[in-house]
Amino acid sequence: MRIALLGGTGDIGEGLALRFGRDTDHEILIGSRDPEKARDAVESYGKALERQRTEANVKGFANEMAADRADVAVLAVPPYHVGDTVETVADNLDADTILVSPAVGMQGDEDGLHYHPPGVGSVTELVAQRAPDEVPVIGAFHNLAAGKLTDLEVEFDLDTLVVGDDEDAKKLVRDLANEIEGLRALDAGPLANSAEVESVTPLVINIAKYNDEMEDVGVNWV
Amino acid sequence: MRIALLGGTGDIGEGLALRFGRDTDHEILIGSRDPEKARDAVESYGKALERQRTEANVKGFANEMAADRADVAVLAVPPYHVGDTVETVADNLDADTILVSPAVGMQGDEDGLHYHPPGVGSVTELVAQRAPDEVPVIGAFHNLAAGKLTDLEVEFDLDTLVVGDDEDAKKLVRDLANEIEGLRALDAGPLANSAEVESVTPLVINIAKYNDEMEDVGVNWV
Repeated sequence: MRIALLGGTGDIGEGLALRFGRDTDHEILIGSRDPEKARDAVESYGKALERQRTEANVKGFANEMAADRADVAVLAVPPYHVGDTVETVADNLDADTILVSPAVGMQGDEDGLHYHPPGVGSVTELVAQRAPDEVPVIGAFHNLAAGKLTDLEVEFDLDTLVVGDDEDAKKLVRDLANEIEGLRALDAGPLANSAEVESVTPLVINIAKYNDEMEDVGVNWV
Repeated sequence: MRIALLGGTGDIGEGLALRFGRDTDHEILIGSRDPEKARDAVESYGKALERQRTEANVKGFANEMAADRADVAVLAVPPYHVGDTVETVADNLDADTILVSPAVGMQGDEDGLHYHPPGVGSVTELVAQRAPDEVPVIGAFHNLAAGKLTDLEVEFDLDTLVVGDDEDAKKLVRDLANEIEGLRALDAGPLANSAEVESVTPLVINIAKYNDEMEDVGVNWV
């Protein structure tokens, strides 16, 4: 399968590239607004994977090109660029490309981070609103700490929650997430349930802030 | 210590009464709008604790009387009665009584449960707004499934998140929660962080709904 990580030069993109690169045989397409930046990231990820004795199957592209070739395209961009990125790649998507949204809107103050969704309810739902109607939109990978995800020396045992209205697409993304070693993908229902999933992201960051012994906090649902 | 469970005839009150009753030596005061109902609950909890070979230290009162005698008063009432209950017991609270809020506002539809906080931001913050100024307000016990809490045969290994602006009161409630076997209390920061804590409650219910193998879902922060 071909997995595009749009905005794949950021930390969530890096983490997913390294984990999918090490743990699966899928082809990883790193997308960026600047293809040169994508190719630099690919070089860096390739070296990290080589240190794990994994031959990298990672390539760099402009976001549009990465989306065009992908079976699954992950919007690994900051939350306030999600809408623009969807519009940029809209012509390169179709019913056979699953669009995956991991971004979360947050605002910080002295107390910690707070969930700050767009008016439509959640970033995941914003993606569904902006994407072409025939493109299946799935929320996943929201609550994974980049610090753990990007460090391949960390063997984790974490859960991720998957939301979506298209059951086939949701199952495919769950199966894909389960291919990452130590990651368990659970179903959290339709897109309408995405706000509660997203709001766990500021929460895990707050827990790390207020408990000395904890960092890069993740979740197990038990 | 004296722990009042206001509205302690409901399932969260029952669960906390049984767990505190079995795992600690604290005096448990069950409060209800109807003292007769409180005494019936006490009889039922006493029998459940006897089956665990624990001598019950549980008594029943009207909410006002339970609050008046308490060191810690837990608002174990449905979310839309929290404000009224605080007003009912306000004259029985003072700076030496910690008020604990575990309730969460939710609305359900065919997709699942959704977080539905009051305008002030969260039920925990509503309690802080309605309580007399000198009374320390702490949020805790939000995300515990009643089904697990009330069944003493279930040995759980769960986390609860504690929020509050009064550090001494927060520490006391954390220590108290940690006395329940298998429960770990983590600090999630000030009251301003309570909405993200509360919104985990509809989420755990949705996870139970959409994953066949799971029920009475709880959380470990790892």
